[in-house]
Amino acid sequence: MPTTNTPSSNVPPAPFTAGDYRARMARAARSAADAGLAGLLVAPGPDLVHLTGHRPVTTERLTLLVLADGRDPVLVVPTLEAPDAGHAPGAPALTLRDWTDGTDPYTVAADLLDRTGRYGVSDNAWAMHLLGLQKQLPDTSYVALTEALPMLRAVKDASELARLEAAGAAADEAYGEILKVRFSGRKESEIAADLAHLLLSFGHSQVDFTVVGSGPNGADPHHEAGERTIGRGDMVVLDFGGLKHGYGSDTTRTVHVGEPTAEEQHVHDVVRAAQQAGFDAVRPGAACQDVDRAARAVVASAGYGEYFIHRTGHGIGVTTHEPPYMIEGEERPLVPGMCFSIEPGIYLPGRFGVRIEDIVTVTETGGRRFNNTPREMAIVE
Amino acid sequence: MPTTNTPSSNVPPAPFTAGDYRARMARAARSAADAGLAGLLVAPGPDLVHLTGHRPVTTERLTLLVLADGRDPVLVVPTLEAPDAGHAPGAPALTLRDWTDGTDPYTVAADLLDRTGRYGVSDNAWAMHLLGLQKQLPDTSYVALTEALPMLRAVKDASELARLEAAGAAADEAYGEILKVRFSGRKESEIAADLAHLLLSFGHSQVDFTVVGSGPNGADPHHEAGERTIGRGDMVVLDFGGLKHGYGSDTTRTVHVGEPTAEEQHVHDVVRAAQQAGFDAVRPGAACQDVDRAARAVVASAGYGEYFIHRTGHGIGVTTHEPPYMIEGEERPLVPGMCFSIEPGIYLPGRFGVRIEDIVTVTETGGRRFNNTPREMAIVE
Repeated sequence: MPTTNTPSSNVPPAPFTAGDYRARMARAARSAADAGLAGLLVAPGPDLVHLTGHRPVTTERLTLLVLADGRDPVLVVPTLEAPDAGHAPGAPALTLRDWTDGTDPYTVAADLLDRTGRYGVSDNAWAMHLLGLQKQLPDTSYVALTEALPMLRAVKDASELARLEAAGAAADEAYGEILKVRFSGRKESEIAADLAHLLLSFGHSQVDFTVVGSGPNGADPHHEAGERTIGRGDMVVLDFGGLKHGYGSDTTRTVHVGEPTAEEQHVHDVVRAAQQAGFDAVRPGAACQDVDRAARAVVASAGYGEYFIHRTGHGIGVTTHEPPYMIEGEERPLVPGMCFSIEPGIYLPGRFGVRIEDIVTVTETGGRRFNNTPREMAIVE
Repeated sequence: MPTTNTPSSNVPPAPFTAGDYRARMARAARSAADAGLAGLLVAPGPDLVHLTGHRPVTTERLTLLVLADGRDPVLVVPTLEAPDAGHAPGAPALTLRDWTDGTDPYTVAADLLDRTGRYGVSDNAWAMHLLGLQKQLPDTSYVALTEALPMLRAVKDASELARLEAAGAAADEAYGEILKVRFSGRKESEIAADLAHLLLSFGHSQVDFTVVGSGPNGADPHHEAGERTIGRGDMVVLDFGGLKHGYGSDTTRTVHVGEPTAEEQHVHDVVRAAQQAGFDAVRPGAACQDVDRAARAVVASAGYGEYFIHRTGHGIGVTTHEPPYMIEGEERPLVPGMCFSIEPGIYLPGRFGVRIEDIVTVTETGGRRFNNTPREMAIVE
């Protein structure tokens, strides 16, 4: 498949420094103290990547970053992963405490905790590890990190925004190219493979999802891509993304093979108007739920409310699903630097679905899209 | 790169049926009752794959299989993932209970639990979800599934053994091919890419790791593959695997670029003898730790004990790290059908490392290897 990759889009940004990670860990520890917590327990995954740059290989062995305001950060690591941890970009800003196979890692971690403290723990920490700590220190208590500090990673700095913008631009380039390939007569899985190839060509290091939902499969929002052969007359939902320079892309466009029916065009128009309404609601101080309400109102007033069966959006950063969530009940205010998806959809069971999604960042005055391909329904072959 | 893929090795096995999954869930629930548990709470990941065949896309939304002896299995799922869950091969053997964005999934799950019950929970369930359940039902208690029922997935049936054998054979084919490529003057990351390509060529659906540890990098057991250029005189640890037909491969060989020194040859000989000793210790009724002891004794008696810094092996199945673990203190007996790695190593910091690893299954009379490439040190260019 031809690609028009421009080298400029792949110039890697300056790496985050140990100083960057030191500042992030200090800010996180301070936020925890402000929230009345004794500290934070950070597990491998997006929190640890954000705070230290460390991406360990395995997780059944305990790796845990212990942050407490006024104390030096300590990373508990398995001995055999200590060398890798020591090479993490944030390693100079923390102390390693290793434990060896056959010893109890929870006693090592417990030594670093207040015996009656309340700790925020990474959402995705393994239950096994939390149970190990609860057993060692029965008088401690725990709260999920996104419940205690939902906005810890939500506001991006300039360097992070540049990465998210580059990831969005790469996804847009991939979309531009996929419109040139043949859809009719090919399987969803083949289009998905094309999309994955394009994301990698445009500088992604990792492809996280390539949804290709054709015809009735498009009515299942989390259908990935299967063996169905795409035919003329099919609506096709394309939802794809991954990581570029460590930050996520996530965009959706719904295309049509040949000319759409009037109903298909109408549903697409409604979703596009809803997406625009969600975007127009973005401004500092508006509540997250206002974005959801604005998009949902358009869908509902067109009579399709019951077919919009998911939240309007999710935050994005070092992972593609994180706070803030654009959902009814989320009253927290939008703040400049937040980045999230706006992705309303209509799903008509057994028939077809339409979803349109951009990543948007909050500016001082409103919103700015990181995805800028046309939202009008593209006609493909 | 040339490959000599034989189509016969890629004939997919007959898929597991709803009946297979029903039997697995019933056996798991019965085992939980026998262990004094009210039931099992199974999260997305290897446990859920093993018990239902379901592989959900996201995990911050609660998906939880609730198993209790004498009750029908119930899978709590997000509404928008319910269609996918309904298509899982094990779906006919369970009931779906869905919850919608914006509602509390823990109340849905709590309705299915005994208010004072003790539950086994998947090791890798998210802490956030465990905390959500603990908050809803403060009188319940929990234990990690591998602590309560460590051997739940450990003994493989004939169909699983066939899959693991096929995965091992494919990894062996990949090793045979990698010996033909040029090492000297190329980066570790290039050899790693070759290995990934080969695993996929030989029928793997997923590559999980491609460790290429050359020279001093080989002395870090969890080094993956980096930008170091491999040169003549380097030892190179090659440790690679992934999934084929849903089951794991994992094999390690240590090769040398050009002729080794006498010391390098000696260290390699010691590790090879240790691996053989571990294998020779495999028989029904031996303790897991006996395998570790047998391998470790060879390394220790050669004077390298302090440089063998990890356990001797781990179980393998739908994931590449699972019980049983071959480690001092693990007194559980080996049982026919168990499958695990035997992978002693010697790591000389700043110099080089050697590791040799096969997947082995326990038979009625001893052990059988699923990796059968030569364990002698291969010389590469």
